[in-house]
Amino acid sequence: MSKGNCLIGQSGGPTAVINASLCGIIQEAMRHPEIGDIYGARHGVLGILREDLVDLRQEDPEEIALLKSTPAAALGSIRRKLSSPEEDDREYERILAVFAAHDIHYFFYIGGNDSMDTVNKVSSYAASKGYPLHSIGVPKTVDNDLPGTDHCPGYGSVAKHIAAITMGVGLDMMAVHLTDPVIVMEVMGRYAGWMTASTALARRRPGDAPNLIYVPEAAWARERFLDDVRRTHDRWGWCYIAVSVGVKDESGDFLAAQRGRFAKDAFGHVQLGGAGSFLESLVREELGLKTRLVRMGPAERIAMHFASLTDRDEAYDLGVEAVRYALAGETAKMVSLRRVSDSPYRCEFALSDLAEVANAEKKIPREWLNEAGNDVTEDFMRYARPLIQGEVPTPIVDGLPRYARLREVEVGRKLEPWSEG
Amino acid sequence: MSKGNCLIGQSGGPTAVINASLCGIIQEAMRHPEIGDIYGARHGVLGILREDLVDLRQEDPEEIALLKSTPAAALGSIRRKLSSPEEDDREYERILAVFAAHDIHYFFYIGGNDSMDTVNKVSSYAASKGYPLHSIGVPKTVDNDLPGTDHCPGYGSVAKHIAAITMGVGLDMMAVHLTDPVIVMEVMGRYAGWMTASTALARRRPGDAPNLIYVPEAAWARERFLDDVRRTHDRWGWCYIAVSVGVKDESGDFLAAQRGRFAKDAFGHVQLGGAGSFLESLVREELGLKTRLVRMGPAERIAMHFASLTDRDEAYDLGVEAVRYALAGETAKMVSLRRVSDSPYRCEFALSDLAEVANAEKKIPREWLNEAGNDVTEDFMRYARPLIQGEVPTPIVDGLPRYARLREVEVGRKLEPWSEG
Repeated sequence: MSKGNCLIGQSGGPTAVINASLCGIIQEAMRHPEIGDIYGARHGVLGILREDLVDLRQEDPEEIALLKSTPAAALGSIRRKLSSPEEDDREYERILAVFAAHDIHYFFYIGGNDSMDTVNKVSSYAASKGYPLHSIGVPKTVDNDLPGTDHCPGYGSVAKHIAAITMGVGLDMMAVHLTDPVIVMEVMGRYAGWMTASTALARRRPGDAPNLIYVPEAAWARERFLDDVRRTHDRWGWCYIAVSVGVKDESGDFLAAQRGRFAKDAFGHVQLGGAGSFLESLVREELGLKTRLVRMGPAERIAMHFASLTDRDEAYDLGVEAVRYALAGETAKMVSLRRVSDSPYRCEFALSDLAEVANAEKKIPREWLNEAGNDVTEDFMRYARPLIQGEVPTPIVDGLPRYARLREVEVGRKLEPWSEG
Repeated sequence: MSKGNCLIGQSGGPTAVINASLCGIIQEAMRHPEIGDIYGARHGVLGILREDLVDLRQEDPEEIALLKSTPAAALGSIRRKLSSPEEDDREYERILAVFAAHDIHYFFYIGGNDSMDTVNKVSSYAASKGYPLHSIGVPKTVDNDLPGTDHCPGYGSVAKHIAAITMGVGLDMMAVHLTDPVIVMEVMGRYAGWMTASTALARRRPGDAPNLIYVPEAAWARERFLDDVRRTHDRWGWCYIAVSVGVKDESGDFLAAQRGRFAKDAFGHVQLGGAGSFLESLVREELGLKTRLVRMGPAERIAMHFASLTDRDEAYDLGVEAVRYALAGETAKMVSLRRVSDSPYRCEFALSDLAEVANAEKKIPREWLNEAGNDVTEDFMRYARPLIQGEVPTPIVDGLPRYARLREVEVGRKLEPWSEG
């Protein structure tokens, strides 16, 4: 393929390793003379629409290398689903205009379901207009809910972090259980329970935290839950409960919504959010047990100070592979991981169909949960354990990680400003 | 002093390094032939009252060494303030009976204010009865509110952990600020703001998180707060707010209580707890900015996976010093740290008066906060920065820390069971 410039964007919720994929793309792109300028779009597709691009060749190579151990999304991220091109192709037209103005023929987009949808639609639109474009999606999501790949970069690190926190808070609970016997740990995950399930990796002995795991894949029932907690507390003297924010009861309502029916905030508005707060109240009121709530929210996903080396290396390698596939002539695909073996753990790189990835969510198979729907089985452990192995060496300055900070040298605009209107 | 057995207890909320102090005491005690058996009291003073003791010489030395990098409280902890001996000396009589039955003449108690009060009262009572006892308190608290010591073991590690989380969540916020511009991070600390203040260590560039810091040492005012957030958001496009659970308004009411006036939980009861939830609602409702809440609770204090080596070593050394002081004939004192120099950082060991420690709380000096009461000054940074230096090497097994687990071989009971009666 002839020479062209390359554009990279990041999208959706950040992870500990989305910048490792960015680093892989940049460093691999620099190795290939077919690729001219290397641009980053600020805040994903919004940066493309706004022609808000930065020149990544102007960055210090040392800072680029540091991206490999920097959490969050150095180019800035965005949550935005493009409209369907059949309904309104203004956005697509603009994107192609920006690509053409900057001679962009390689496009790499790192993100989740919606981002893969974006890559898919942009690719089809470019093809329909005869614009030569090699676009590859690079998967990322802490939720691990992308189909078309064994697992998703970002998941291993969040799993490792949450498991380490569970291990520590579990020991804390055992130490103070005579006065504070119950922990409710609310974990992100609206549709799939992969993150919450990973707390199970923390167990080393019977009775260890977590004692109960509730995920969206199994319906929750109030009496069964209270019975689970009562029995666990009777047996061990404590109870550590891990719960996904997206857990639903048997009528299909979010626990958070149950709470919302009753709870009003300081302004008299219904309070949403808070499966954890709901269970905390329930245990306290119904069982009379003092309960402490852990709700880390975005702090779950940014812990490069205890991230998985396996995850980080896969995130980097997928970035590298994306460039290689694009240069080999592939387009409109997502790079993915195909597991060859659990032990020793080995994954191969592959390509997945974007349309398949964009429109589905991968949940925990029901048979990887126990019958009672309050724990995972060994199948899940076999799947998850290899993903948290190894620690990422991070440079430390003054007691804290030294993270990359880009200069973000802007690329001159060549088009009229974009108006959302 | 003649030969005697030694008893160790842990009390109050766990920290990342309370077991390092335990390890220091055990390992140093083993070096001295004057010390016979080395016992641990399960769940602090409650274990003494119940004669619930374990024989620490029966533990694997490798496991004892691992305590140096194990969070929480391996002997179990308790929150319990002894009654005043003038009012009721039944507890003291029992404690001395247990000491006498097991020939205990060295007593080491690791804890905070209440624990130092316990050591003080037990020491006085023993002296009044002519029972030979060498008792030394070893300070610990994540709150850092103990007088009589430059700082408190446990604080450096929680400060480092919270700062690392702030750094990561801050980058996350900057990445997604176009849709999610505000973070409220609620930090423990009911009377003193040391922990919340330590988030300031995360800053590297102007605009970095945290942008606003609210601690109990400065009264909070609603309009000033909303103005702070508005101005920060206007300037940077985001706002990271760190707030202590114990912040009070100008009438002296907890923010959490303000929220409580309005909010009811799922059972119609007033909701306490939640300075963070209150500010989250306030920003969302009054300024219309999407706000995310981070509320780590006990997860703040157990992060041995990113603990301060300086803190850990001081915790260990204070345990060692406690034994040496006791053998040198000291009693009814707390081992403490006296800072000699900020840079290079150096502390000396000292002894503090227990009564002074037991009945006061050390707050952040007002002059270490800015005039507006929404940030710390460089004085605070100079104080806190040395305390987070270095990382604790932790053995890792299967991707997660390998923490000590004691066998807890029980010491045979010699007395009648204790009744709380």
